[in-house]
Amino acid sequence: MYDLVTFGEAMIRLSPPDFKRLEQTTTLDLNIGGAELNVAVGVSRLGMKSAWVSRLPDNPLGRMVANKAREFGVDVSPVIWQKEGRTGLYFLEFGATPRPTSVVYDRANSSFSKIQPGEVDWEEILQSTSCLHLTGITPAVSKSSAAVTLEALQKAKASGCRVSLDLNYRAKLWSPEEAHLTLAPMMDLVDILITTKGDSRTILGIEAENDEALAKSLLDKYPIEMVAVSYREGDTVWQCLFSAIAVNREKTYTTRTYNIDIVDQVGRGDSFAAGFLYGVIGENDLQMGLDYGVAFAALKHSFPGDFNWCTKDEVEALLAGPKPGVHR
Amino acid sequence: MYDLVTFGEAMIRLSPPDFKRLEQTTTLDLNIGGAELNVAVGVSRLGMKSAWVSRLPDNPLGRMVANKAREFGVDVSPVIWQKEGRTGLYFLEFGATPRPTSVVYDRANSSFSKIQPGEVDWEEILQSTSCLHLTGITPAVSKSSAAVTLEALQKAKASGCRVSLDLNYRAKLWSPEEAHLTLAPMMDLVDILITTKGDSRTILGIEAENDEALAKSLLDKYPIEMVAVSYREGDTVWQCLFSAIAVNREKTYTTRTYNIDIVDQVGRGDSFAAGFLYGVIGENDLQMGLDYGVAFAALKHSFPGDFNWCTKDEVEALLAGPKPGVHR
Amino acid sequence: MYDLVTFGEAMIRLSPPDFKRLEQTTTLDLNIGGAELNVAVGVSRLGMKSAWVSRLPDNPLGRMVANKAREFGVDVSPVIWQKEGRTGLYFLEFGATPRPTSVVYDRANSSFSKIQPGEVDWEEILQSTSCLHLTGITPAVSKSSAAVTLEALQKAKASGCRVSLDLNYRAKLWSPEEAHLTLAPMMDLVDILITTKGDSRTILGIEAENDEALAKSLLDKYPIEMVAVSYREGDTVWQCLFSAIAVNREKTYTTRTYNIDIVDQVGRGDSFAAGFLYGVIGENDLQMGLDYGVAFAALKHSFPGDFNWCTKDEVEALLAGPKPGVHR
Amino acid sequence: MYDLVTFGEAMIRLSPPDFKRLEQTTTLDLNIGGAELNVAVGVSRLGMKSAWVSRLPDNPLGRMVANKAREFGVDVSPVIWQKEGRTGLYFLEFGATPRPTSVVYDRANSSFSKIQPGEVDWEEILQSTSCLHLTGITPAVSKSSAAVTLEALQKAKASGCRVSLDLNYRAKLWSPEEAHLTLAPMMDLVDILITTKGDSRTILGIEAENDEALAKSLLDKYPIEMVAVSYREGDTVWQCLFSAIAVNREKTYTTRTYNIDIVDQVGRGDSFAAGFLYGVIGENDLQMGLDYGVAFAALKHSFPGDFNWCTKDEVEALLAGPKPGVHR
Amino acid sequence: MYDLVTFGEAMIRLSPPDFKRLEQTTTLDLNIGGAELNVAVGVSRLGMKSAWVSRLPDNPLGRMVANKAREFGVDVSPVIWQKEGRTGLYFLEFGATPRPTSVVYDRANSSFSKIQPGEVDWEEILQSTSCLHLTGITPAVSKSSAAVTLEALQKAKASGCRVSLDLNYRAKLWSPEEAHLTLAPMMDLVDILITTKGDSRTILGIEAENDEALAKSLLDKYPIEMVAVSYREGDTVWQCLFSAIAVNREKTYTTRTYNIDIVDQVGRGDSFAAGFLYGVIGENDLQMGLDYGVAFAALKHSFPGDFNWCTKDEVEALLAGPKPGVHR
Amino acid sequence: MYDLVTFGEAMIRLSPPDFKRLEQTTTLDLNIGGAELNVAVGVSRLGMKSAWVSRLPDNPLGRMVANKAREFGVDVSPVIWQKEGRTGLYFLEFGATPRPTSVVYDRANSSFSKIQPGEVDWEEILQSTSCLHLTGITPAVSKSSAAVTLEALQKAKASGCRVSLDLNYRAKLWSPEEAHLTLAPMMDLVDILITTKGDSRTILGIEAENDEALAKSLLDKYPIEMVAVSYREGDTVWQCLFSAIAVNREKTYTTRTYNIDIVDQVGRGDSFAAGFLYGVIGENDLQMGLDYGVAFAALKHSFPGDFNWCTKDEVEALLAGPKPGVHR
Repeated sequence: MYDLVTFGEAMIRLSPPDFKRLEQTTTLDLNIGGAELNVAVGVSRLGMKSAWVSRLPDNPLGRMVANKAREFGVDVSPVIWQKEGRTGLYFLEFGATPRPTSVVYDRANSSFSKIQPGEVDWEEILQSTSCLHLTGITPAVSKSSAAVTLEALQKAKASGCRVSLDLNYRAKLWSPEEAHLTLAPMMDLVDILITTKGDSRTILGIEAENDEALAKSLLDKYPIEMVAVSYREGDTVWQCLFSAIAVNREKTYTTRTYNIDIVDQVGRGDSFAAGFLYGVIGENDLQMGLDYGVAFAALKHSFPGDFNWCTKDEVEALLAGPKPGVHR
Repeated sequence: MYDLVTFGEAMIRLSPPDFKRLEQTTTLDLNIGGAELNVAVGVSRLGMKSAWVSRLPDNPLGRMVANKAREFGVDVSPVIWQKEGRTGLYFLEFGATPRPTSVVYDRANSSFSKIQPGEVDWEEILQSTSCLHLTGITPAVSKSSAAVTLEALQKAKASGCRVSLDLNYRAKLWSPEEAHLTLAPMMDLVDILITTKGDSRTILGIEAENDEALAKSLLDKYPIEMVAVSYREGDTVWQCLFSAIAVNREKTYTTRTYNIDIVDQVGRGDSFAAGFLYGVIGENDLQMGLDYGVAFAALKHSFPGDFNWCTKDEVEALLAGPKPGVHR
Repeated sequence: MYDLVTFGEAMIRLSPPDFKRLEQTTTLDLNIGGAELNVAVGVSRLGMKSAWVSRLPDNPLGRMVANKAREFGVDVSPVIWQKEGRTGLYFLEFGATPRPTSVVYDRANSSFSKIQPGEVDWEEILQSTSCLHLTGITPAVSKSSAAVTLEALQKAKASGCRVSLDLNYRAKLWSPEEAHLTLAPMMDLVDILITTKGDSRTILGIEAENDEALAKSLLDKYPIEMVAVSYREGDTVWQCLFSAIAVNREKTYTTRTYNIDIVDQVGRGDSFAAGFLYGVIGENDLQMGLDYGVAFAALKHSFPGDFNWCTKDEVEALLAGPKPGVHR
Repeated sequence: MYDLVTFGEAMIRLSPPDFKRLEQTTTLDLNIGGAELNVAVGVSRLGMKSAWVSRLPDNPLGRMVANKAREFGVDVSPVIWQKEGRTGLYFLEFGATPRPTSVVYDRANSSFSKIQPGEVDWEEILQSTSCLHLTGITPAVSKSSAAVTLEALQKAKASGCRVSLDLNYRAKLWSPEEAHLTLAPMMDLVDILITTKGDSRTILGIEAENDEALAKSLLDKYPIEMVAVSYREGDTVWQCLFSAIAVNREKTYTTRTYNIDIVDQVGRGDSFAAGFLYGVIGENDLQMGLDYGVAFAALKHSFPGDFNWCTKDEVEALLAGPKPGVHR
Repeated sequence: MYDLVTFGEAMIRLSPPDFKRLEQTTTLDLNIGGAELNVAVGVSRLGMKSAWVSRLPDNPLGRMVANKAREFGVDVSPVIWQKEGRTGLYFLEFGATPRPTSVVYDRANSSFSKIQPGEVDWEEILQSTSCLHLTGITPAVSKSSAAVTLEALQKAKASGCRVSLDLNYRAKLWSPEEAHLTLAPMMDLVDILITTKGDSRTILGIEAENDEALAKSLLDKYPIEMVAVSYREGDTVWQCLFSAIAVNREKTYTTRTYNIDIVDQVGRGDSFAAGFLYGVIGENDLQMGLDYGVAFAALKHSFPGDFNWCTKDEVEALLAGPKPGVHR
Repeated sequence: MYDLVTFGEAMIRLSPPDFKRLEQTTTLDLNIGGAELNVAVGVSRLGMKSAWVSRLPDNPLGRMVANKAREFGVDVSPVIWQKEGRTGLYFLEFGATPRPTSVVYDRANSSFSKIQPGEVDWEEILQSTSCLHLTGITPAVSKSSAAVTLEALQKAKASGCRVSLDLNYRAKLWSPEEAHLTLAPMMDLVDILITTKGDSRTILGIEAENDEALAKSLLDKYPIEMVAVSYREGDTVWQCLFSAIAVNREKTYTTRTYNIDIVDQVGRGDSFAAGFLYGVIGENDLQMGLDYGVAFAALKHSFPGDFNWCTKDEVEALLAGPKPGVHR
């Protein structure tokens, strides 16, 4: 039915313009974001058919979240609507070296956090679906959302649908111990693992010399098909380098490293996941997944908001070689 | 210590600009407001010394609320700061006839809602304070805030501080029955009652032919000193008429009715209360309170935000006669 | 397949903020609009399943148009994408009495204007579709778009799909004579006619004493099922009255007249058509169509942009009686 | 050389957006304005060749003033540039009934206020010029600017150039006595007088029953050719009525009264003067001057800023009859 | 009559703020630009008397273009006004590495593109004019604009007016072959050539080891007086290096290289041309032309919009040595 | 009574957004700033009790300045209010390499500049105050403000209150000679000197090989307790390095150097002074003062406006080690 289904919470993101502090601002820019929705949006921009499973209140704020997903062509028919409830929010302050960009969450008690096993019709949604994408954020939201994550994983396996997991540790939501207890057991049901060195160490306790060694340890320890490990370098807030490797049971894949001017780095990892899954799921080509993932993520930094507004043509033009100067 | 102390919750108000819907907007205008803080701000603009008792999280959003109160000269030293917690929010959509202006609350589980009896040092705060102002909103927020409201009332009586109450019914927070059960018993401790025909009927069950009759019934039924009843007329969203009467045990006071262009009507009643208390408490002159209350409220409609940016000079100029045309 | 399908051009609308002139502005507000898309959006907000047939260039501006339609749940899969070409634009200046609101079109040579008969798969789109909605604007755009309009009409009749037509005369696109020559012959294929006194006189040459007489003349002259005639009154730019009547072969229907504060009147007629078709097609209830049409159109004036952001709940609340004041 | 030359100060006008107070705003909208420049701009929009005589500092703020005049086709070559000095400013707060729109001047010690007799090459500028337009504001700015005003008047008479004067009393700049002492003697050199009932009473001490009687008294008392008297009615801030009469030694002229929605009323009188002088000087037709003056002033209310962005076509369309609704 | 006359199209440029994509934006920033107008504006800022020859529709958009040219002191009296027609537009998306800044043109069928030989009174305009400046963009717009370009060149030679040409290849307007066929024959009438290595190779087919060798080949091949070759270095979107050389039949001139933070690079080459022509035409000093051209272009990057808002004082201050830190 | 009292003028700062020039802008961002108020604000954010002595007009602009100081918890009760007068202004243009950020002052004849000795009740204000902070800007404003500066210094010494002075040379206000004549004699009353190499050379005529040698010369020459010397490095407008040293009669203190992305550098030195005085006065720890001063100043660059919105927690987090990436 779908090329990719994702499951998770999306929030309304409120950020002061022009590097203002929250205490200082009289207006807020409004965007929508959430790791799993960001991935559904990303693969839809690249041409895949995607759906997003979530739970929202039927009020202006909840409708706004669904509207924006729909704007990108993501199917939101699996969303469960609640008469009452709230949409999670997060406040984002853009930084400038040495002040980091930072987030104030206001997502407790959201409609999503109260989702219960049995509410989602996974059989219907996952029928003829190629891949289910999850992240380590969803089970961190609440006990019941962790239960539904496990439910989704099991239903996916039963449906013959591949499972992709981005570990994505969020220190403001849970401790490393809680993350480990919840996520480690799920690893046996995952096919495609997307992670970073830091998240693997924090959640799975795996120390490795480098990204390739890390990937190999993960492949040794868990019955996964492949691992993608992305990394960012640079210690200023407005610029970084970004790349990734991917390793499967046959070989290690590498790709180009991008020099990046940062407009908005939120959603970088989700764009990487989207580009990666486009290659792996949509085109059955791991090297292509890695190339697209890193290029798509590099381009993401140039747009405000969590979503990636790039087209596939632009990804391909970048892969063919960057061209500074005005295109006219 | 203070001319007026108020107690209640203030929220961050987020509203789309230019009559946009929430679903439609990409930016939100940010203001701070809450009935009791609005009154503290109002009397401070008119020259009284005021303080505001509340409870806020020690994060950027909580600090912003206190900063803005301080900007107006309101003493926020009685605020109780919490390490964790959230600031209440409300979303406001400005309407145009026939679409009413409307509010979506997101204030559940705020730091304020969890306030407990015993947390506020009422003796210290109310010592040598002339008046404590409360509204019917605060006890509607939570059971514990209702308990603290009662505590405040009792401490005020014990301190010889007068008590002003604005009934202020909020249908989105509680039912008429709940309001009645909580507020009716408090009436015995109130000195100055500020209300409207609708709120008196809903909360206290008093039906009256007109505002004066209503006021007299209230004076008959409760041991209050005086009642002020304000009213708005007009069935369009951008214009109205506004006035009020005040009645004490001796006589009925009336004042002028204003024709009003509405920029933002939120906080109208709070400005009325502030102007009224300025006359009654600050100047010991009920007629002056009524005149200032209605004029200050009329002027409030001309500013965006809950707060009243008028000066006492402007109130006095209006009382002396309106002058259309540009003042230059 | 759909409850309603519409066919026509949508444009990017650029308008200076804050009543500025075009010559005066340094920024433009961007909205999307076009009579037929506005109707598809309107019925989708009211709960119907709608699709929009059009032709767009595959560039950022064309994609933006489709994105926004999708945001409202309108199915844009029938859109024909062109590698080259331009999206029509219009510039809108908001007026204030005595300066009227005015439009500068820049829509010549758009991708849509070059649409050709045979390009749209009408059989597929209209299969199991309840109603096809057209307007008198589409055939005014170009000779070939007039030919495709006729093609659509004929295919609809062949598919057993009802046809709705809003006459919508646009003086900047063609002369009364051209309009008459093109539209009069189409009247024999129309089931539901939506019009105004002015448009009927200009295009069909029908003079009548009042709206009801006009409607009866139209029913006499053409094999239509029903006619809805809307009217606006008032000679200021910021306020008006709006209502409509509907007449079928049995009786005349009337509804309430609304007093309206005008934020943006563009799309008024399209909202009327959407509400009317919701009642007539979706609920098979002409009185309901008239009531919803007029209320939905009245509410439209309160939002910036061509689209109607109202919910069905709000229409119903208005039908149940207006309530000025803040809803909180 | 020119159809009209005007002489006076222009200021940078800073106003908070969206009816905010100055104390409340974090941004200011910037416009340029000054009665005499407004008139030069107005007649240029209507097709006359105009020049503006003033004095500005050669810094970004001074250059901005000249740039904007030039944008409208006003010749600024007569401007005297100073190496040091400041540009006058005024802060404008837009009101809403019952709060009037109000101005805070910050124009003391401007470069213009220090202008000295002998600095302007009046012979050169007024050579072959049809009319010199002055206002009662310029001599109020400083003693030396009053001296230069008198110098200009005398040079105009010597050059055979007609002189137009708009009395324009500014209470924040001088007292009625000062105004009288300065302006009354100048009346003997004036050909065309533009005024209101209030200004004539304040400055010239003339009381009259109505505008026509006032005009006749003025014609009796001073050797002027004609008088135009404009009037505004209405006591709300967002709406008014506007019209005028003109009287010469033969007859009294009247014109239509306009119902006006007010976006920005600043510059109303200057637009009236511009339209009036267009008819009287440019077309030698007093009735036309009165008609254009009132229509041009009515339209001015619909634009933000002091300047009138109307075209002659729009004035003529309004004179031919107003047409509400969107022009498309 | 003029120091410099330029001939070409100017467009309205619409760009999303804050690095947003077009698909993402709800507002557009509006600027005016076009290579030849940019040059006329630039030399006017530096103190030369310039005029701009073009063709515009007499509607708000056309008037806006002329207004802005006039704001800078450029004489627009040679503009040919059309009753109907459209103003060309271009949409600009600002990039961030690795996403390039890019342009979507919407300029086809503009009023300018339909200009015909014989419409411009070149004799009048070029009489006593020192230099006519053209670019390779104008003949790319349409066949008839190419014909008028040739006409202008021939009239200039006949008037004894020097001709400057900036090759300026635009890939979105024509192919290298078309450019070559049109521009190569014009080279015999050019006195001052302004170009880059890339443009010379693309249009004239000249390959050279370095900029100096290129300039010498051009001097060998064509009867030009001098060549200026500018270059940009750096592969990020927000920073670059910029410099140029100039070569005449006697010697090679070099100047400083600037390190540049890029706010808006559009118009860089036009600012270089303006500064260069200021030195060469206005001051008859080639070294000064090169120094001013490069400094003026470097400063251009710091302003949003195509136009250069620098003053001659600022250029001279930069030539005297850069001074970081706040000037106060 | 206070931990720190500062004395000086604050101005309204008006700056075009988005790197626009003043000549180019249609809006201005409004902030409040002034070196001594900036310091009072800074130490208040860090937890000290501060007051600000100044002189303001009692109009909207004067009130706005006091409001904003109060928003930060600075006590403005010592402000002297004037019925008439103006608030100083400054216009700020943000630059981009090679265009420097620059300031146009419009502060002459401000209410502050007319302050007279005897107006301030120094005994009352300085009673039990730990430190009085002054800068070299205040005596540059006017002769009478220089006299009040000296008065303040003398009263502080008499009250046993330490005196801190930031030399802060402003070339647009006075010459090096004037500065020397006024400030050099004051040095005998200063306890804590804050300066830069450039300011010391310009004002005090002290040349030194490096910052440490400079500090030692100052300690040799004047009876000061300690000297802090800050420095900035880097020749681009958007990035710099910042650090400082401090020297007392025992030893030299150093701290970390920060790599800084510049959003707004205005107020850097004032933040350094605030952080430094927090450590020295509040915590009696010179090393802590130096560390906090440099970190607080580094963080200042990341906020628009003169004020520092950092919290003490953020300073401490930075001192504990920078952490790029989003904090979530």
